[in-house]
Amino acid sequence: MTAGDPGDVVELAHGSGGRAGNRLVENVFRPLLGNPWLDRADDGAVLEPDAAGGAAASLVMTTDSHVVSPLFFPGGDIGRLAVCGCVNDLAMMGARARWLSAGFILEEGFPLSDLRRIVASMAEACQEAGVAVVTADTKVVERGKGDGVFITTAGVGTRLPGQSPEGAGARPGDRILVSGTLGDHGITVFNAREDLGLESSITSDTAPLGGLVEALFQAVAPGAVHAMRDPTRGGLGAVLNEIARQSGVGMVLDEAALPVSAPVRAACALTGLDPLYLANEGKCVVVCAPDQADAALQALRAHPYGRGAVIVGEVIADENRFVRLNTPFGGQRLLDWLNADPLPRIC
Amino acid sequence: MTAGDPGDVVELAHGSGGRAGNRLVENVFRPLLGNPWLDRADDGAVLEPDAAGGAAASLVMTTDSHVVSPLFFPGGDIGRLAVCGCVNDLAMMGARARWLSAGFILEEGFPLSDLRRIVASMAEACQEAGVAVVTADTKVVERGKGDGVFITTAGVGTRLPGQSPEGAGARPGDRILVSGTLGDHGITVFNAREDLGLESSITSDTAPLGGLVEALFQAVAPGAVHAMRDPTRGGLGAVLNEIARQSGVGMVLDEAALPVSAPVRAACALTGLDPLYLANEGKCVVVCAPDQADAALQALRAHPYGRGAVIVGEVIADENRFVRLNTPFGGQRLLDWLNADPLPRIC
Repeated sequence: MTAGDPGDVVELAHGSGGRAGNRLVENVFRPLLGNPWLDRADDGAVLEPDAAGGAAASLVMTTDSHVVSPLFFPGGDIGRLAVCGCVNDLAMMGARARWLSAGFILEEGFPLSDLRRIVASMAEACQEAGVAVVTADTKVVERGKGDGVFITTAGVGTRLPGQSPEGAGARPGDRILVSGTLGDHGITVFNAREDLGLESSITSDTAPLGGLVEALFQAVAPGAVHAMRDPTRGGLGAVLNEIARQSGVGMVLDEAALPVSAPVRAACALTGLDPLYLANEGKCVVVCAPDQADAALQALRAHPYGRGAVIVGEVIADENRFVRLNTPFGGQRLLDWLNADPLPRIC
Repeated sequence: MTAGDPGDVVELAHGSGGRAGNRLVENVFRPLLGNPWLDRADDGAVLEPDAAGGAAASLVMTTDSHVVSPLFFPGGDIGRLAVCGCVNDLAMMGARARWLSAGFILEEGFPLSDLRRIVASMAEACQEAGVAVVTADTKVVERGKGDGVFITTAGVGTRLPGQSPEGAGARPGDRILVSGTLGDHGITVFNAREDLGLESSITSDTAPLGGLVEALFQAVAPGAVHAMRDPTRGGLGAVLNEIARQSGVGMVLDEAALPVSAPVRAACALTGLDPLYLANEGKCVVVCAPDQADAALQALRAHPYGRGAVIVGEVIADENRFVRLNTPFGGQRLLDWLNADPLPRIC
């Protein structure tokens, strides 16, 4: 289906980080709402109030709706996720998150005790991230017209000096780093939802990455960080393909270098899921100048949320914008976009 | 029920503009998330980036989730509503809306043609209001876990000079103005939802009020506008009681002066609904200094969205913070808070 015919309907795939979701943006949202900010297709929008507005600094604004199911899972819940999702989008834009908004859509019959747990978890995450929910709204829908609680957060942050990462910033020769193991969040939520009884040591990595990004920025030369993304929906596969497309480059990764924990690897083997397409909620991908890659790696590893950081590959010139994996056996395979996310409602 | 016991569940009343919704904020959100911005209980948050942030101007941020049912109704749809809701909250804070975010929660199976209509309507409203949706997100939930589409918008605006309206700003002697007829939106949505077949001339007033507010500000002396609110959920009754509570004042209204169109009045008579508690989406309440009330009235009436403006009453000293109506028969009745909104999912 093409998301172009009037008779089409929304499908679960449209909510994924893969092609169908992208097509929905291209065919529906961008033609109708397009403007210089949306057209950049970054995780947020750099706000530059003009002289009439009286402000000088670059502000960044972002938003994410959260519909994760189940609402509570090892290592987090929808509240922690809603704060971290917004903070991390701002961090990936090179901004320090300052102010959040939160819109709650609650289902009639949802236990208040659960709501309290969720809001408390938001407050805790806000404290850790140094942000405040400065305005909020609540709506309630009838039983059967929602699913417990959905939370949409928006955030505004101030851009950090020295670096201007953007999706279109990757250049041939750049190194590609990931800040730690891949797939933990996706497998955790899947396990909790399906009650698979997998390895109990698997927990979500949901965390605010503002501090990690600031440490990185302080450790490298001005302008060295060319692109950053948090590999949430669609995982590493989705974000690398996004950056490759936006920057007009290719990428080659060393498959053996990609960090996946043993329990996640085992769970993936059992379920047939690929960790490279699973969501992460406390990891980032950094594309940086080659001569700054070691400094970047050390800075990430020195931070609690970046201990497992590794250099996983390199940006190359490639007009096809392919993301390729060098396999441990000397072969090469394509890390393509997924057409549909195998795990809906993961965030 | 008190929204305080662990065994309580969310009820439809919690989404209303009345007491139960207020209790939810007081018992759940504020204790856990409270900060100087949230505690003011205004429609949005004034952002004042400090020197470290590098910005000087006061920015305002706001958010609203939209779950109106049906999605399309005479005079508007959820898309127009989602833009106007945000723009109007900023206008009521004395800010010119600049940047919006939008988070869409779509139900599997929702027709793309309907989604396109909705997004087109957002774009049209954005153009009219002079704002842009600068960042957006989409999630999809399974059939039966949502209801077509929910839209959460957040907005950031720059504060206009000259006036600093706030919920706590009303003072005894101030005049109370409303910008036009009351109840149109509420009755329209109710009629469309229940298929009552009421008077077809009734349409929603959904409109962006930024221009109206700027015209008002230009017409009155600096500092003359003490409080503004758009009477959405819970209607005039809710917002006047909110302002009275926040400002520590009472109010007396002239019931005969309250503008309600003949078709809305007839529909209310038929359904038993009270227009003073019905939602409006293109009206504002202005509380201003008495010597500026006539200038304010003329400015409102000169604008297309304020043609029906009238002075409806006066702020008085009253430690009970009562809002009273002088009836046409020489009596007086209390315009109390509603405990639960009679019409859920009105916006």
